[in-house]
Amino acid sequence: MKYALGIAGVGLIGGSIAAAAKSRGVVREVIGFGRSADRLAAAVRAGVIDIAGTDYEAASGVDLFVSCLPVDRIAESVHEAARHMRPGSVATDAGSAKGTICAAVGDEPEPGVTFVGSHPLAGSERQGFEHADANLFEGRTCVMTPTEGGDAAAVERVAEFWESLGCRVVRMSPAEHDRVLARTSHLPHVAAAAVAIGLRPGEEQFAAGGFRDVTRIAGGDADLWASILLANREAVGDEIGAHVEHCRNVANALAAGDAEQLRGFLAAAQARREAFVRTFENS
Amino acid sequence: MKYALGIAGVGLIGGSIAAAAKSRGVVREVIGFGRSADRLAAAVRAGVIDIAGTDYEAASGVDLFVSCLPVDRIAESVHEAARHMRPGSVATDAGSAKGTICAAVGDEPEPGVTFVGSHPLAGSERQGFEHADANLFEGRTCVMTPTEGGDAAAVERVAEFWESLGCRVVRMSPAEHDRVLARTSHLPHVAAAAVAIGLRPGEEQFAAGGFRDVTRIAGGDADLWASILLANREAVGDEIGAHVEHCRNVANALAAGDAEQLRGFLAAAQARREAFVRTFENS
Repeated sequence: MKYALGIAGVGLIGGSIAAAAKSRGVVREVIGFGRSADRLAAAVRAGVIDIAGTDYEAASGVDLFVSCLPVDRIAESVHEAARHMRPGSVATDAGSAKGTICAAVGDEPEPGVTFVGSHPLAGSERQGFEHADANLFEGRTCVMTPTEGGDAAAVERVAEFWESLGCRVVRMSPAEHDRVLARTSHLPHVAAAAVAIGLRPGEEQFAAGGFRDVTRIAGGDADLWASILLANREAVGDEIGAHVEHCRNVANALAAGDAEQLRGFLAAAQARREAFVRTFENS
Repeated sequence: MKYALGIAGVGLIGGSIAAAAKSRGVVREVIGFGRSADRLAAAVRAGVIDIAGTDYEAASGVDLFVSCLPVDRIAESVHEAARHMRPGSVATDAGSAKGTICAAVGDEPEPGVTFVGSHPLAGSERQGFEHADANLFEGRTCVMTPTEGGDAAAVERVAEFWESLGCRVVRMSPAEHDRVLARTSHLPHVAAAAVAIGLRPGEEQFAAGGFRDVTRIAGGDADLWASILLANREAVGDEIGAHVEHCRNVANALAAGDAEQLRGFLAAAQARREAFVRTFENS
């Protein structure tokens, strides 16, 4: 069956989902939802979406709805769309935190309309559907967070959708997702921002490729990231605590002139990095 | 005048200096010094250096000597080479920390042989002369750290050498260099390693491009970096303290649910990152 796909938030992620679904021929049409009629019209002209809606009335025609809005607006958008969606249709999202969203939406936001949380692990610091990339999800992991009481058939449909875009789907609970992503994505963002903010005006010329890479994600949109961190505040707080502890151990080793402890720490970090690279490059 | 150039430590940096000097025609010959006769012979065969020395006797023939060894071996190598160098010849280095090295070597390690510290801000996490890149220094900043009592003519000769490889030379004191580089390079390395070490085995598949970039430099050699951090332990300790403070502010904002403080922090980090990118991309 070819879907009618609804996308709320036609930016980099929403636009890439639309582009990937279209280029792989898995959708009949894509309906884009958003607040700006001008931006949506531009997305239609660019061929990223077929139909534009500044309210959710047209959600009555979609088989699968994916909210790609910032995490603090996802739950509301799913509830609003679900009011118009037909029984048997399915909603999901692409939010980077899952616990608060899944709790706020529930398994069945409207009678007969099911929801299951998703988080495709792909992105870019760039914004806007102009940077949409039909291959953004190729080989990437998509975490789905079905709850125990959720509709297994709906979960399967959403999993097939992500797989059709090139993703490898992994299922875990919303809470487990949030704990893992705090380590793999949210804490790294905080650390990158904390490094970037330490650079003093006038010292830019003394920073090179290492600084560039460590701080790249700190260039991401501040409001979007504030929403993500707040939506996962408990786990992120725990990981910041662990990070501070690691940093303090390094400071203590330096103060003590303990070369062996320092080398041990750096070698362990290098080994973790290498384990990641092996996985990432083979994905 | 075409130099006879001596390079101690024919690895990525030493090899790239040799390759850059040769390809730009600023040297007559390059004498490579190192502990491994096999590796030096391979560097000769690869055309990176012309002559190999496993001791410093051949330093009697060099006009300019550059120690590219790990920071904890630079001072010793300059002293040893200087014992063989002719009066009027000049030594420098490429070490990432300057205070301890400049203090240990002094302005005139042997009568008539002068030393001035250098740090070309270029590198890679790769190692070995096989990755040598004749354009590694093109457009990059090289910090030189002359002392007040140093020989101005020798400083000028070394500055001209780095400029001939494509560097833009900036002079500052060893202590100032170490404070600035703690922020632009050494703390970023510690933060990257602390992020990498937080990744738990089995979670690699849930890390993506952000984690890859933040942790890239944590893949660097642990022993080399332990030496750098220890050689600049006071300033690095201070910057770790500042980093911990920034991280704690984020944790406090999260615990309080203070979206405004969080957005302010992330926006300030984004602005610092953007200031860096403007400088880096125009260099």
